[in-house]
Amino acid sequence: MNGALAMLRTAAAAGVDLCAANPGTTELPLVAALDAVPEIRPVLALSEPVVAGIADGYGRVARRPALALLHLGPGLANAAANLHNARRAHTPLVALVGEHTAAHLPLDSPITMDLPRLAAAIVDEVIIVDEPPQAAAGMATAVEVASLGRVVALVAGADVQTGAAQTVAPKPETTSSRADLSHVPEVAELLRTTPKALLLLDGEGLTARAQRAAARIAAGTGCGVWVGTFPAVMDRGGDLPALLPIPYAPPMARAVLDVPLLVFAGSRTPVAMFGPSDGTAGRLVPEETRVVDLAPRGSVAAALEALAELVGADPAPSASPPPVRPDGALDPERLAAATAWALPEGAIVVDEGITATRSFLAVSGGARRHRYLRLTGGALGFGLPAAAGAALATGRPVVALQADGAAQYALPALWTQAREGLNVTTVMCVNDAYRILQVEMRIAGIDPGPAASSLVEFRSPIDWCRLAEGYGVAARELGDAGSLADALAAAVSDPDPQLLVVRL
Amino acid sequence: MNGALAMLRTAAAAGVDLCAANPGTTELPLVAALDAVPEIRPVLALSEPVVAGIADGYGRVARRPALALLHLGPGLANAAANLHNARRAHTPLVALVGEHTAAHLPLDSPITMDLPRLAAAIVDEVIIVDEPPQAAAGMATAVEVASLGRVVALVAGADVQTGAAQTVAPKPETTSSRADLSHVPEVAELLRTTPKALLLLDGEGLTARAQRAAARIAAGTGCGVWVGTFPAVMDRGGDLPALLPIPYAPPMARAVLDVPLLVFAGSRTPVAMFGPSDGTAGRLVPEETRVVDLAPRGSVAAALEALAELVGADPAPSASPPPVRPDGALDPERLAAATAWALPEGAIVVDEGITATRSFLAVSGGARRHRYLRLTGGALGFGLPAAAGAALATGRPVVALQADGAAQYALPALWTQAREGLNVTTVMCVNDAYRILQVEMRIAGIDPGPAASSLVEFRSPIDWCRLAEGYGVAARELGDAGSLADALAAAVSDPDPQLLVVRL
Repeated sequence: MNGALAMLRTAAAAGVDLCAANPGTTELPLVAALDAVPEIRPVLALSEPVVAGIADGYGRVARRPALALLHLGPGLANAAANLHNARRAHTPLVALVGEHTAAHLPLDSPITMDLPRLAAAIVDEVIIVDEPPQAAAGMATAVEVASLGRVVALVAGADVQTGAAQTVAPKPETTSSRADLSHVPEVAELLRTTPKALLLLDGEGLTARAQRAAARIAAGTGCGVWVGTFPAVMDRGGDLPALLPIPYAPPMARAVLDVPLLVFAGSRTPVAMFGPSDGTAGRLVPEETRVVDLAPRGSVAAALEALAELVGADPAPSASPPPVRPDGALDPERLAAATAWALPEGAIVVDEGITATRSFLAVSGGARRHRYLRLTGGALGFGLPAAAGAALATGRPVVALQADGAAQYALPALWTQAREGLNVTTVMCVNDAYRILQVEMRIAGIDPGPAASSLVEFRSPIDWCRLAEGYGVAARELGDAGSLADALAAAVSDPDPQLLVVRL
Repeated sequence: MNGALAMLRTAAAAGVDLCAANPGTTELPLVAALDAVPEIRPVLALSEPVVAGIADGYGRVARRPALALLHLGPGLANAAANLHNARRAHTPLVALVGEHTAAHLPLDSPITMDLPRLAAAIVDEVIIVDEPPQAAAGMATAVEVASLGRVVALVAGADVQTGAAQTVAPKPETTSSRADLSHVPEVAELLRTTPKALLLLDGEGLTARAQRAAARIAAGTGCGVWVGTFPAVMDRGGDLPALLPIPYAPPMARAVLDVPLLVFAGSRTPVAMFGPSDGTAGRLVPEETRVVDLAPRGSVAAALEALAELVGADPAPSASPPPVRPDGALDPERLAAATAWALPEGAIVVDEGITATRSFLAVSGGARRHRYLRLTGGALGFGLPAAAGAALATGRPVVALQADGAAQYALPALWTQAREGLNVTTVMCVNDAYRILQVEMRIAGIDPGPAASSLVEFRSPIDWCRLAEGYGVAARELGDAGSLADALAAAVSDPDPQLLVVRL
């Protein structure tokens, strides 16, 4: 068995079952080895942003890593933005990168880049396999580390892939060590004695179980419960409490966070995405706010439940009304209402709508149970491929709420959706502009002239139906909110992908 | 004046007149400053591979840097593949990257990456401006270094862009120091005494002047003249000698390079793109070959002319016949003939046809005078944006010979072509596969099974006409060589972009 086969068999034994790929010459032994590892489904993408986005969407909902097979330096670089988003989402993910043979590297052939340095700038951990006998162990370690919620780059030269190797047995699943509940009593005491405290959920704190515990804590203590601004994956709807993320706009975020006590449950200190233009930092939490972490070493849901045992009370039933089918002209509110109304039980919503979907979370708390994924790292191009990855992981209907500007960074994801026959319904929100930049310019006091305006307004037609159809995805434009709601309800029952265009 | 304006005015004073951009929040002061610097044309692209490819194509033919305006870490990462190609082409290029304000960086906001490390892995030189008063000097240095044929990343935080600054005067153009002709006598003596020597042109050795001198040297000494495998920009056609690049396939390259003496003129040691799968290095030049560099410190054309004075003779007129309009079914040979026949005087050919355009250079030596640009760094996605950049730089008709697989890495370049009204005619060569990988698999002895085949064959329709029309580019499919020739001849006279689909 060669190194490539040893790596893939080791990955399969550790539970890996998907390999998103945009391969090149140095990965061909890995490509060939896939024929001998039927447990791993190969999924072709036409560009690397799509590969990485598929693996991100997959890993977020499957909670186990997919492989993202990439072609040496340029392939890894092309994948960097969506790998960055995955890193910020704590997605388990293994980027499997084929490198030149070791003897060829010093010749500095035209396609050679400084791959170790590049990888170190992009992912959480870089594992470079130098010898074929280490290939399988490298994969085993990569999968193990990735499974902790990290993005790992596993780099193996073509000579490592073709040399003689053996598989290694996956490490036995370590029975998760006892939850660390040591902070619970202190937090209970603080919540009992501090009015207007705020509990901030993120990461593991966004499961249904964790949210239910948080609702009991809120009912018992009167604390507020909020979610981090960019939830990687969050259970929502049904009988779950209708929680909202900290707003993106710093003034609104500061208003929420102006509390005497902030308790983290799977979250970290919220900061603004960008610092103000006057050169100061974008801090959001007042200096005088006391900040404590309920479960700094994980086991967030267990810690929340233990805390609820101490201070909780039965919460009132969720007050979120079920969504109503909207009528009338399309605007962000009616777009949100139509989506919330049409979501079937168990659907997945992937949100890269940026300004267009600002109302979705506020109106969808009463929708049927669903899961919600948001762009985590601010690097555009997440939505369409992540929707494909979520569909591949679950087989559930996926609704991608997609901004038109952001869609252009990974548009060939539509082709993979069509090729794999995925039930993804994309709502393409068209405003023919980088609206978020127009907002930011207004905030910065910039009055754009002809040149500046020309860089934030598109001004040249983009026919989204033709683009979608070009990739094999059926598409049509909807002119009002009721039609959109009906089209969405029909599309989520269609096993093939569709794209619905709305102008806002 | 703020740092952003100081940078742009300094760039304009140094001759910069184009800024390809896909900006984000941290670049907004630079975007706003463009309104006050009308000498610099802003050109919007929908993704960063397009931005970098435009700047590469522009810089290759203009021989001065364009700016590529990019949004902090993710923007630079997205641009990396085409910046890599530019670096391998020795293109003058300044990647202007807006970073967070310095105070915001330590907060590690979600969109933050390790930008200095990332940049160092991608470009030739990184210049980080920390203080507004240094902004203009940073730009002056960046333009100066880039003008030497280097890719420079100039990084300035939003606070540097908004702080008080002044322009700096561009350094006076240094009158180029006297050409270094010190190697000429030795090379002359070697060529006189070594039969079957080979002169290898690249870089500055590909200008018309250099090629004419090379032809005289060949006529006088009987040496062969070849071109590096990946010419960044090469004058061709008309009365120029019909030179060919060293073949891509290593066995064919070794056959050409099996000579006793190899003289570099603007070139470096040719190596294979990839090393063999047995783990050895992909060397192409025999160990016993004597290798000398005619002009290691530049002034290649002057050195070739001096050498021609010593050993040259009048060459026979170019024997390349003018191309003939082909008829019949489309194949790579007739595709090449149709293109060569239709090229107008002064056209530019951008070739990312990979396997589909393997015949173009062999049949186009007798075409009208044109310039030829090839993918230099092996990172796919060069062709469509570089074609836009070449058109922006020259206003000349551009023909982009484009492989379908490679086109998907920067397809929104078509939109910029339409928006800017550029005379670019794309010949989309469709084989619905990664043919080059199929070839490489055959060479490696891999017999692909279902999984491996599924990663190199597309198997799901891509409607190229709809994709082009979606971006506002008129498109149609041609079924035979004669129709293609006629369509090309008409398209190059059309000021707007067109896309012609051919199936091979």
